[in-house]
Amino acid sequence: MYLSKLFIPTTKDLPTEAKIKSHQLMLRTGMIKQSSAGIYSWLPLGFKIMKKIEQIVREEQNSIGAQEMLMPTIQSSEIWKESGRYDDYGEEMLRIKDRQGREMLYGPTNEELITDVFRSSVKSYKSLPQLLYHIQWKFRDEIRPRFGVMRCKEFYMKDAYSFDLSDEDAKKSYNKMFYSYLKTFSRLNLKAIPMAADTGPIGGDLSHEFVIIAETGESDVYADKKIFEIDPNVYKFNDSSLLKMREDFTKIYAVTDEKFKKEDFNKLVKKENQIITKGIEVGHIFYFGDKYSKPMNCLIDDKSGKKTSVKMGSYGIGVSRLVGAVVEAKYNSSVMKWPKSISPFDVVIIPSISKNNKENLEKAEKIYNDLKKQNIDVLLDDVDENMSNKFKKHDLIGVPFQIIIGSKSKGNNFEFKELNSESEILSLDNIKIKLKS
Amino acid sequence: MYLSKLFIPTTKDLPTEAKIKSHQLMLRTGMIKQSSAGIYSWLPLGFKIMKKIEQIVREEQNSIGAQEMLMPTIQSSEIWKESGRYDDYGEEMLRIKDRQGREMLYGPTNEELITDVFRSSVKSYKSLPQLLYHIQWKFRDEIRPRFGVMRCKEFYMKDAYSFDLSDEDAKKSYNKMFYSYLKTFSRLNLKAIPMAADTGPIGGDLSHEFVIIAETGESDVYADKKIFEIDPNVYKFNDSSLLKMREDFTKIYAVTDEKFKKEDFNKLVKKENQIITKGIEVGHIFYFGDKYSKPMNCLIDDKSGKKTSVKMGSYGIGVSRLVGAVVEAKYNSSVMKWPKSISPFDVVIIPSISKNNKENLEKAEKIYNDLKKQNIDVLLDDVDENMSNKFKKHDLIGVPFQIIIGSKSKGNNFEFKELNSESEILSLDNIKIKLKS
Repeated sequence: MYLSKLFIPTTKDLPTEAKIKSHQLMLRTGMIKQSSAGIYSWLPLGFKIMKKIEQIVREEQNSIGAQEMLMPTIQSSEIWKESGRYDDYGEEMLRIKDRQGREMLYGPTNEELITDVFRSSVKSYKSLPQLLYHIQWKFRDEIRPRFGVMRCKEFYMKDAYSFDLSDEDAKKSYNKMFYSYLKTFSRLNLKAIPMAADTGPIGGDLSHEFVIIAETGESDVYADKKIFEIDPNVYKFNDSSLLKMREDFTKIYAVTDEKFKKEDFNKLVKKENQIITKGIEVGHIFYFGDKYSKPMNCLIDDKSGKKTSVKMGSYGIGVSRLVGAVVEAKYNSSVMKWPKSISPFDVVIIPSISKNNKENLEKAEKIYNDLKKQNIDVLLDDVDENMSNKFKKHDLIGVPFQIIIGSKSKGNNFEFKELNSESEILSLDNIKIKLKS
Repeated sequence: MYLSKLFIPTTKDLPTEAKIKSHQLMLRTGMIKQSSAGIYSWLPLGFKIMKKIEQIVREEQNSIGAQEMLMPTIQSSEIWKESGRYDDYGEEMLRIKDRQGREMLYGPTNEELITDVFRSSVKSYKSLPQLLYHIQWKFRDEIRPRFGVMRCKEFYMKDAYSFDLSDEDAKKSYNKMFYSYLKTFSRLNLKAIPMAADTGPIGGDLSHEFVIIAETGESDVYADKKIFEIDPNVYKFNDSSLLKMREDFTKIYAVTDEKFKKEDFNKLVKKENQIITKGIEVGHIFYFGDKYSKPMNCLIDDKSGKKTSVKMGSYGIGVSRLVGAVVEAKYNSSVMKWPKSISPFDVVIIPSISKNNKENLEKAEKIYNDLKKQNIDVLLDDVDENMSNKFKKHDLIGVPFQIIIGSKSKGNNFEFKELNSESEILSLDNIKIKLKS
C-alpha cells in the first residue's frame, strides 16, 4: 500500500475529552473517528489492527475446540424476562420498541440467547461438552462514555459459552478457557494476569478477570511478583495439567482494588515481592452453573435418563477494547510500536524524496515490489515531506520495522531500523530474513 | 471435524412459514435458528458458509483498490436530518431513543455516515478517487419478514462508497464496481445478470441490480439470451475496457418486472431469444452524484481551488442473503451441492459403521488425518446410523465430494463420489488430486 492512497485521515486538533494516550493516538493516526458520543467508525488503519486481534482470538478459541457461530445484535426482551435480568439490567441496556410495539433490546451480552439456542437443540449428555462462541458487536448505553474505545457504547467482543453435565466437567471447560486466554494475550505480546474477580450482573461463584499491566490502567493492581514468573507454556492441554495451571495462578496473591485488603496483602506477600501498579481488564470468565439454564428450563438427560439443568459458564474478551489496551501498554516516550503479530504492516519503506530527485522513490518502489512478491505486507511512504516529519509520523503509526532510503543507503545495502533501536545497514536479503523471523 | 462433535442441530418439524427451499434447507441442516421474527442466529455450518462468501466479496473489493473500514450499527439521527432522509425513510427504519432521550437509529444503509466521515477528513481533489467499503450488520424493520434470510430484519451486507471529483471520474468508479460484482458472483459459481434498475430511496439516475437466475426467485426476469453469453473475463481492468464492458451488457435487453414493458420486449428481442424466468437480486449499485454531498456540505477543492460537492456512488451486496440465494440456485431434486469455493468442508468421509465392526471407522480416521495434513478441510461422519440415512443427510448438508468407506472400497482404493454424479473407485492419491484441482 502506498501511504498517499491509504485512507488515513490524521487529526491534528485533538478534542479536549481525549485524555488518555490510546484515545489520543487512535484519533491522531486516523485509526478511528467518533460518529456520536461513545460510538466510533473504524478507519482502515484501526480496522486492520482490530481484525488481526480478532483473528488471533479466533484461532485460540478454535484450538481448544470451541465452535464459532454468530448471534444477532437485536434480541427479544422475552428471554431476558425468563432469566429475570430484564428488569435488573438497568439503564445501560439499550431498549428498543419495533414498529409493532414489541420490546426488543441491543444485546449487551448473550447468556440468555445462547441458552435459548441450546435448549431447543441439545437434549442428551452425549452431545456434551459443548463450547460455542461468537464475535459480535454489543451495546451498553454508558451514561458517560469516555477514554475512546476503552469505555464506549458500541463495542466488539468475543463471548464464549460452555455447556456441561456436571460441576466437575464444567470446571474443566473453565480451565480450558483460562488456558486459551493466557495463550491469546501472549500472542498479542501482552502480559495478562488472571485475578479472582467479583461476578457482577453475570452471576456465579467462580470468576477471573485478565488484567494487563499498563501505567495508565483504570484499576489499581496489587500482586506478588511471583505471578509474573509463571510460564503458561509449560502446561499441557489435558485436564489435570490445566487444573494445576489454574491452581498455580490462583494461589499467588493478585487482585485489583475491588478485592484489595491491605492486611491480606501484607500478610500473604513478602514486602520485597509486593507490586503495586495499574492495569486494564481485557477479559473476564465466569462459571455460574445453572443460573440461566434453571429459570430458562434448559434441560439435559443424564446417563440415567434423569433431566438436569445444564451447567454453564461464559467467557468474554473485549476485541475493540484490546486495540486501545495494546496502545496503553506499548506507547511510551512518544513512540508507538505495534507487536509484530498485529501490526498494520510488516514494514514501512521511507524514501527521502525531493522535488528534483526521484531516484530514492524509484529505489523504494523496486524494494516494495520485491517484498510484496515475498508476501510481506509493506507500506511505502511516497508522501513528499521532509524526513524529520516522516519519522515523527511513523513513530505514531507504529509499524515496527523501517527501511530508510536516504544518505546511508548505498547500492544494495539499506538502512534498516526497528523502532526503539539503532538502525543498521543491511542487504535486502538480510532484511527479508529479519522480517520473516 | 467429526460430525458427532459439530454443533449442527437439525430441525425435523419445519415451521409452516418456511415456504421456500432455502428457508427449509437452512433450518433442516441447522445452519440458522430463528431468535425472533426475522432475526436469526447463524449456527456453525451456516456461519462458515457465510464467512466464505464474505471473504470472496472482500477479496474482490480489495482487488479493485477499495479499502475496508467499519462503521457502527447505531447512528445518530442528526446526519439523516441533514440529508433529508430521516422523515422520508418511513417505518422500516428502526428508531431508538437512548437513555438521555437522543434520537438514534439502527443503520439500514450508510450514505450519510460515510459522507460525514469523508467531509471531516478529505479536502482536496489530490486525495481522489477514493473507494471505501465495510461489511456490517444492517436492520430494516420489515412489516412482514419472510423467506428466512432472504427477507429478514437483521442482515449482513457489504456496502461500498465511491468519491470522485467529476461525473466522468465517478462513472469510472462505477464501472470498476460493476466489474468487481461480476467477478464476485462468478467466484460464487452464480450467473448474475446486471439489469438497469430504479433507484428507490437511495436516489440518483444510474443504477444496476445484479440478479441471479433461480426458478424460485422473487422477481420475474425478461431477457435476451445473448446476455448470458457475455464473458466478463475478456475485459481488462482499465477505464476504456470497463466502459465497453458496461456498454456491452447494457445494450442487451434484460429487466425485472419493475421495468418490464411487453411492447419493448417484443420489439427489441427476437422471439427465439426471449427468455422469461425468475431471479433473485443479490447486489445493487447506484450513482447519485451530489445527492448527499450537497445537503451535507461535503466539499472538495478542485484544481483551480474552487470548492465543489464530491460525486458519490454506493454499491451493495447482501452477504447473508447470498447464502439463501445460493441455495435457491443450487438446491435441486432433493440434493444441495455447495459450490467448491464456499462449501463448509472440502470433502466428507462416510464410513459404514456397525456395532461390532469398527474397521471402516478406523480406516476413515486414517484417511481423515492424512487429508488434514494436506490442509484439506474434511468432515468425518462418525455417527452410528445406517448408510441410507447418512446419504440422505449429506444430500442436504451439501459437501460436494464424498469418500465412502463401505463394500466397494478395497485396500487403498476408495469409493469417491461427486454429488449429482456416479461414484468411482480411486486411490487416495488420485482423490487428493481431484480435491485439490
